[in-house]
Amino acid sequence: MRIAVDAMGGDFAPNAVVAGAYQAAREDKTSILLVGDGPTLEKQLAKQGELQSSIEIVHAEQVVGMDESPITPLRKKKQSSIRICGELVKEGRAQAMVSAGNTGAALIVAKTVIGSIKGVDRPALATVFPSPRGGTVVLDVGANIDSKPEHLRQFAVMGHFYAQEILGTASPRVGLMSIGEEESKGSDLTKAVFAEMKATGFNFVGIVEGRDVFRGSVDVIVCDGFVGNVLLKSAESLAGLMSGMMKDELSKTWRTRLGYSLARPAFERFRRRVDYREYGAAPLLGVEAGCFIGHGRSNPRAIRNSIRRAVEFCAADLHNKIRDRVAELHAQEERLLEARLAEEAPAT
Amino acid sequence: MRIAVDAMGGDFAPNAVVAGAYQAAREDKTSILLVGDGPTLEKQLAKQGELQSSIEIVHAEQVVGMDESPITPLRKKKQSSIRICGELVKEGRAQAMVSAGNTGAALIVAKTVIGSIKGVDRPALATVFPSPRGGTVVLDVGANIDSKPEHLRQFAVMGHFYAQEILGTASPRVGLMSIGEEESKGSDLTKAVFAEMKATGFNFVGIVEGRDVFRGSVDVIVCDGFVGNVLLKSAESLAGLMSGMMKDELSKTWRTRLGYSLARPAFERFRRRVDYREYGAAPLLGVEAGCFIGHGRSNPRAIRNSIRRAVEFCAADLHNKIRDRVAELHAQEERLLEARLAEEAPAT
Repeated sequence: MRIAVDAMGGDFAPNAVVAGAYQAAREDKTSILLVGDGPTLEKQLAKQGELQSSIEIVHAEQVVGMDESPITPLRKKKQSSIRICGELVKEGRAQAMVSAGNTGAALIVAKTVIGSIKGVDRPALATVFPSPRGGTVVLDVGANIDSKPEHLRQFAVMGHFYAQEILGTASPRVGLMSIGEEESKGSDLTKAVFAEMKATGFNFVGIVEGRDVFRGSVDVIVCDGFVGNVLLKSAESLAGLMSGMMKDELSKTWRTRLGYSLARPAFERFRRRVDYREYGAAPLLGVEAGCFIGHGRSNPRAIRNSIRRAVEFCAADLHNKIRDRVAELHAQEERLLEARLAEEAPAT
Repeated sequence: MRIAVDAMGGDFAPNAVVAGAYQAAREDKTSILLVGDGPTLEKQLAKQGELQSSIEIVHAEQVVGMDESPITPLRKKKQSSIRICGELVKEGRAQAMVSAGNTGAALIVAKTVIGSIKGVDRPALATVFPSPRGGTVVLDVGANIDSKPEHLRQFAVMGHFYAQEILGTASPRVGLMSIGEEESKGSDLTKAVFAEMKATGFNFVGIVEGRDVFRGSVDVIVCDGFVGNVLLKSAESLAGLMSGMMKDELSKTWRTRLGYSLARPAFERFRRRVDYREYGAAPLLGVEAGCFIGHGRSNPRAIRNSIRRAVEFCAADLHNKIRDRVAELHAQEERLLEARLAEEAPAT
């Protein structure tokens, strides 16, 4: 198994990416294709220590900047590292790609170069939020906006399998994000999708609310990417604000400063529990291979953890499971439709 | 100035509400109409201490439960405390109402009994989120779903004036919630509303993202109530989770427990800074008086702070300011429309 890593993507690329990939190769024995400017990457790799035979550099002439248009790798920069990652996966030279670069560009490369799973109209980004019981998978967190009911149903299928894998729960509880707990409340979208969610055959628990994200009351939450993206980015910023306020208060008197220095190990553990870098990148579910999109501010640890997530994803054969189940659902729908048409046909 | 308080609304009603109202009357010298079951309220008030002449009990036969349909006060329970609060405001016996009861019922009473400001199609719930610079007003947080562009523009007008008042900023920076910072990204709704937002004549800073809620980069954020509600409820639950995790880590060893006990004053200050009960209730902006809707779990402090917010709201004459500016905007639109029609008219 081999992972293609976009060495040029992210705010701290290539240094942080090379360092993270090196750790994955040396400590986790992962085979890596490191994609980017050859001479630069060779120099950076040499700095990391003893050369690892499991890392191979694949040269890419171009880089898509964080602020460039998402379609750049399709038009202007066909030799960009992010696009070449996609091509390595398409050709089967790698089983998954990891990029902490331009999110929009990574999404487009995944959808057009790697391709969507048959039956999945819109791949979705999934994130695991912390909860008292381990975590809650939320999707979509930003790959799609103005989703249709059928898209949300597909998100439920993909979320189900991802949660099985990442949370280790046999029958993940799937909820539909809305406001108020009654089916009759909610937006036009959630009302339209409610009945369809039941038809997925999964453990659909009904409507959930924003409060359920961090409570452990459900394993998977399905929502449109606009809502999921606001949720993701606001949660990150609230966690940052709270840590800052706490530091601020702790530094005010000698007594609280002393208390802080004694309690420091607890703070360190706490920080790791809420740090997105520990979780690694978010998978784009619904494409024909693994595609992990990391936070722009990924440090070496985040990159290494993202590579681990990609390895687990491939080992679990997640995209094949999703493909089979989506095909089943489509077949089921067709049978229902045929049965209905047969019933409605005039007696001859 | 007099505030009508729904003594029967909220998870801890009437005890918590009576206690909070009593504090407001005794310490802030606020005149209060306490609405609910007369004999019960008399007993509860007597327990609080010396009778306050500024509290008057208004008897209400019925109570709308937290789980009852929002239209209950219009149909089945016309003598409910929440409806009578609305009527007291409508008749001018009180200038604002405060309820921590059934949110849907309070919204309906406000809109139908008190009535919307002329020109405001949809009143909106506004919440102040903490930020490093004091706070960010976000609206709507749940009164409306599937909002239209013109509604979001009205939210901007209302948010502008509320932020002026509550944050004390002369020219609040208003942002439109979306994903990605470019105008071309975003949902059908945000794209449609972008141009209209500029026309409000306020300090419109453009698109903002979830991360801006807790960063102090903007003073007012406008969004549909579905998104705002998910944001509000998830933030509350994340804050709870983080506090719980922190406690959990701090209790693990004797060293961190000792550190915690020394640092306790800092934790107490921190808790007050992130506790929604300190902020009090959320105003429903766009109705013809003050209407504050509190958290179901309001304790006496939350009730007292909600009453304070209501008093400030009335003193600042906010609903009149909103009415005037909305009327101005409508007039401006009409002039533009007339000018356009005149231009397009065939030369005669």
